[in-house]
Amino acid sequence: IWCLALYVSDAQYNRNIFFDTSPQAVRLYLLYNHWFMQMLVYVFIIINLALALFEDPALVPLPIWATSTIEIICLSAFTVRMVHYAKVIPRDKFWKDPKNICIIVILSFIDLTIYGALKATGYFAIRWSRVLRPLLLVNVTEGRQLRRAFRSIRNALPQISYVFFLFMFSVLVFSLMALKLFGKRGLLTIDGSPYFTNYLDIVFDLYVLVTTANSPDVMMPAYNYSVFFTVFFILYIVINTYTFMSFFLAVVYNNYKKYLKEEVRQLVKARRLKMCRAFSLLQETRGEGGEPVVTQAKWNHLVKLVKPNISIAHRELLWSVLDDQNKGHIGKIAFVQLADLLSIQVITVKSQPHPIQICFPSVYNSSVSRFIRYMVRTRVFVYVYDLIILVNAVFIGLDEENPVVSNAEWDCVLYAGGYTSRQILDIVFILRVVRLIRLVDSIKRFRAIINTLIKIGPTILTFGQLIVVVYYIFAMVGMELFKGKVQFFEPNSTSPDQEYCGNPLLKGTTFAKLNYCKNNFNNVVSSFIVLLELTVVNQCGFTAVTHVSARIFFVLFHIVVVIIIINIFVAFILEAFLVEYTFDKSDLQTSLEKKIEELEDGVDTGLVDAMESIDNELGPSETGKQKPSLMFKIASRRSRTVDGLLQRMFETDLRHEDFNEEEEPENINFSNPVFDSV
Amino acid sequence: IWCLALYVSDAQYNRNIFFDTSPQAVRLYLLYNHWFMQMLVYVFIIINLALALFEDPALVPLPIWATSTIEIICLSAFTVRMVHYAKVIPRDKFWKDPKNICIIVILSFIDLTIYGALKATGYFAIRWSRVLRPLLLVNVTEGRQLRRAFRSIRNALPQISYVFFLFMFSVLVFSLMALKLFGKRGLLTIDGSPYFTNYLDIVFDLYVLVTTANSPDVMMPAYNYSVFFTVFFILYIVINTYTFMSFFLAVVYNNYKKYLKEEVRQLVKARRLKMCRAFSLLQETRGEGGEPVVTQAKWNHLVKLVKPNISIAHRELLWSVLDDQNKGHIGKIAFVQLADLLSIQVITVKSQPHPIQICFPSVYNSSVSRFIRYMVRTRVFVYVYDLIILVNAVFIGLDEENPVVSNAEWDCVLYAGGYTSRQILDIVFILRVVRLIRLVDSIKRFRAIINTLIKIGPTILTFGQLIVVVYYIFAMVGMELFKGKVQFFEPNSTSPDQEYCGNPLLKGTTFAKLNYCKNNFNNVVSSFIVLLELTVVNQCGFTAVTHVSARIFFVLFHIVVVIIIINIFVAFILEAFLVEYTFDKSDLQTSLEKKIEELEDGVDTGLVDAMESIDNELGPSETGKQKPSLMFKIASRRSRTVDGLLQRMFETDLRHEDFNEEEEPENINFSNPVFDSV
Repeated sequence: IWCLALYVSDAQYNRNIFFDTSPQAVRLYLLYNHWFMQMLVYVFIIINLALALFEDPALVPLPIWATSTIEIICLSAFTVRMVHYAKVIPRDKFWKDPKNICIIVILSFIDLTIYGALKATGYFAIRWSRVLRPLLLVNVTEGRQLRRAFRSIRNALPQISYVFFLFMFSVLVFSLMALKLFGKRGLLTIDGSPYFTNYLDIVFDLYVLVTTANSPDVMMPAYNYSVFFTVFFILYIVINTYTFMSFFLAVVYNNYKKYLKEEVRQLVKARRLKMCRAFSLLQETRGEGGEPVVTQAKWNHLVKLVKPNISIAHRELLWSVLDDQNKGHIGKIAFVQLADLLSIQVITVKSQPHPIQICFPSVYNSSVSRFIRYMVRTRVFVYVYDLIILVNAVFIGLDEENPVVSNAEWDCVLYAGGYTSRQILDIVFILRVVRLIRLVDSIKRFRAIINTLIKIGPTILTFGQLIVVVYYIFAMVGMELFKGKVQFFEPNSTSPDQEYCGNPLLKGTTFAKLNYCKNNFNNVVSSFIVLLELTVVNQCGFTAVTHVSARIFFVLFHIVVVIIIINIFVAFILEAFLVEYTFDKSDLQTSLEKKIEELEDGVDTGLVDAMESIDNELGPSETGKQKPSLMFKIASRRSRTVDGLLQRMFETDLRHEDFNEEEEPENINFSNPVFDSV
Repeated sequence: IWCLALYVSDAQYNRNIFFDTSPQAVRLYLLYNHWFMQMLVYVFIIINLALALFEDPALVPLPIWATSTIEIICLSAFTVRMVHYAKVIPRDKFWKDPKNICIIVILSFIDLTIYGALKATGYFAIRWSRVLRPLLLVNVTEGRQLRRAFRSIRNALPQISYVFFLFMFSVLVFSLMALKLFGKRGLLTIDGSPYFTNYLDIVFDLYVLVTTANSPDVMMPAYNYSVFFTVFFILYIVINTYTFMSFFLAVVYNNYKKYLKEEVRQLVKARRLKMCRAFSLLQETRGEGGEPVVTQAKWNHLVKLVKPNISIAHRELLWSVLDDQNKGHIGKIAFVQLADLLSIQVITVKSQPHPIQICFPSVYNSSVSRFIRYMVRTRVFVYVYDLIILVNAVFIGLDEENPVVSNAEWDCVLYAGGYTSRQILDIVFILRVVRLIRLVDSIKRFRAIINTLIKIGPTILTFGQLIVVVYYIFAMVGMELFKGKVQFFEPNSTSPDQEYCGNPLLKGTTFAKLNYCKNNFNNVVSSFIVLLELTVVNQCGFTAVTHVSARIFFVLFHIVVVIIIINIFVAFILEAFLVEYTFDKSDLQTSLEKKIEELEDGVDTGLVDAMESIDNELGPSETGKQKPSLMFKIASRRSRTVDGLLQRMFETDLRHEDFNEEEEPENINFSNPVFDSV
């Protein structure tokens, strides 16, 4: 029976592991899914990744034996977890899929050994497996969404590469023209070097122009020479910066959508499969030749197992949605909907009349009160209310700057307490900001946007992981390439090297002039911040301190992060926003709502009676006066049901597809950002 | 009968003017649509806009009487055009719609008079109507697509403004936090001014951070102070730079799509209405109670009128598509499809066997030849071929830089001619680039992308107009505000002012250091280039020379151009790309293709016979050997038919809707970018 509940909850949470059905395996599987175990794995991953803080170009140096020991412990933990996983799923499945995990673990072990040996004998060694470390984050079973994101990128790669080739071709041709146009005119850049005379330099400069980092500077010498040369740059910007960058977005968006569709389709398939299995364990045949059905008693038992804290009223409501004809049992098609139905959050509320209405019915029903109630609902009132809030927000902002106002207002609080004024002021400030945010949130028309923001929050975390993985890899490579090339000195140090960040090669460059010395690859934290800056605007002072070929690193970073990952992020937000704005309710949700309405109207008397008895169960019902009635509300306008999303995507109802497809879906672990955020 | 042809050609080209049906009005309408008249209007618009080159902050100063005279001539021309338009359409329609044109013309006249009077009496005057001048471009009847773009923006405005308010609110709250966090720590920026102490300055700095223009600089002081402060900036960038900017794109894209759908729907409606009117003029009733039909003879006559140079074979083909059952007459539903059918470009080709096959049949059919023909079609060959082209492209690029190679190669040509080497080299270079582009174009998998590029070309022109209108308005305002504040000196001038662009306020600023002096608002051309730079990266050195409030100008420009117009551009490219990649053939095109196939198989013998006779008409057919047969090809994979686009958009077939809707569509002049580019 536990196996059964597992099927349903797997279907509800979109897990997709095909575990063995032996009692031992099921017990292990439950342990495997336990939140503590999952948490533990994440802790080990974080520790493993955090090792970069203490390893060689270190923020806090630790001896090598310490970091190595920690790494070995982490890797052992991952191995144990993997062995556990191997016990849960059928043997043949295991060897087909998570080879990559094995490989990474083994690789890390081997690398660690070699590194240790080399270091011990005093040779120079590069820890190249550190680059692979974040891939652990991707390959543990919990990183489902992350893997999905990576798969999405992998699938988009061929198409992106076609556009990219064309884009590079365009850059190359423009560079050629630039060489012809400007190369022989003897122009000089602002630091006196020849302008546009070397082909590869031109290619790099024009590539950077696409990122808009060197926007007016690169064209100034040509512009100063003649106005007509700007035509070249205008053409270049229109074609490459705007059109091709939009093409990249279009390709990524297109692939993202296509892939999302496919994932959702797979998800529905797997979910149905699980539910069908659960059904086949519960079913009983009524009469001879009758359809196999599930009785209400068994169903109730199942729901209690899956969701132990569900209220009886809620359960009755769900049953009445599924068993529409009040037969006392449901068929396969209705049963399969259970997982979707459980994902719709229903709030149980008790409706009560307004307190004024109870105490002073005459006042409440007077014409003045009715006029006020009418006024409050009009449009003008809403606008005025919104305006007041906004004015209030601006004033709070301006007040903060004015010490007289802000101190006068809060002095009483300060003296009343006995705290130091600074701390109190900070707390007060935080309270003010919270108040401000809540005020704006209360404006109705911002609600939808804020809702979208909140709903995409969890998925932004997935993208955060993705970014961390990519940043980590680039940071590792960057640290090997650039560590120690740029030094940061405390502002009040007296070292003469401070002028040029400790590297004579940087003397007189803009990099040193703008005091960018802290933008270096000397430890993980700095590296991450530099990479963030590179994501926003690509500025590459590092080519000055090493070799021109270091540009490859920066261009590669731009391609991977800006062209691919940021575009996926934008595509995701686009889709999430469009879904939020155009999403229709699913059929299931509609029928649930209909039931709730019927309940309110008292049409379905049987159900109402069932509710009444439950009401008493929930607490002693107040007798006399107006009896408060039990009410249900669907918590979120858009539900998490897959069918709704599918309906929108395919504009067909997939529910009536053949349910008997017993083919196992491939071992894809779905559950995807948009879906989860919906 | 001319009126009839007009209906059809209006339907084909999506014009939407409801002209009078009196013979005189029709003749005037034909004149009105004449290409020469339309050209003339554009010439006058360009002259009118170009006046900015010669007016006060002028590139080429002209006396005021000259520019005024030209302006009066232009305005008179517009007035004449408008009167002409008034004669064509019914009187009541005219007064409902083009009021705006009248207003602008009148305004310009009045302003001109006042300006002249003031100037004559020696007062200081601002030509504020110059700002309105580009609106002429929008409001003449030819600017249909431009008007559509403006309407699209206007419709998106409310939604954009909600997101914008929320975005500004977020910026304000972050600024407040920044003030609290950094204000009291006594940090200094790179030019020694206090860092983050003034609230409004912080708001501006953080707003600029959203445009990524001051990306690492604004956070360097805080970062140098402590690593932990970067968390603030990371949060800010993630929320405002990435999420909110994506929201803007999403809102604009969503509105763009919604609006496009509506426009296409209106377009189809108007087109059908016109075709129905044409049908009612041509129809005759067969027998009593029969459906009204159009006979082939009348239809032929009509097609000849609409498209005088259509080949008879092509006409027969079209007829056979419409008259599928070979009845000799068609009903209303089939007739209405004519406009769509005419938009599908059909190429008539004569198939001929390969010349080698004719001359040396034994060689052509030998096993070696067959092997070669097989080889050429394999995948490996295609890849190898592509690779060779790419390698070739790179070599051409690198060669150009190496004078030895490029001279050696072309010296013979040089001496053979007698031209100066420089000119020849330039011509050779252009030829090379063209060769390169053609080479890459021949690679199959780039074809689709290049096709999209080419197809969106015409619509980029519409956006070009839009940009010109907006730039013009901003340039006019900018010139009034900033003219003469920054001076450019020729590089070899000896003026001491050169150091600081002729304005002591700029002494020592980065603006002067980076030699940005030519980025000024001293004439229209410079203004346009500055605005282009602002579009790519917002850098605002001008606040130093005037007043802090000049920032408003730059922020406003960023909102209008980057947030709204660039996003619409991206939305347009997104949609065009998605359409190009997911577009299905329309039903009509499918049936046309089927007919062509049938023709090739010789199934439809009647049609084939008709073709044969036409073949002779086209030229003496070669007798003997293998007779080349006439073949049709559909020119573009995606046709311009509206129904195809609609089918994709609504996933329903609208063709079978009720045709008798005689309600006039509102006076919206559609024809829209995506549709035109498809």
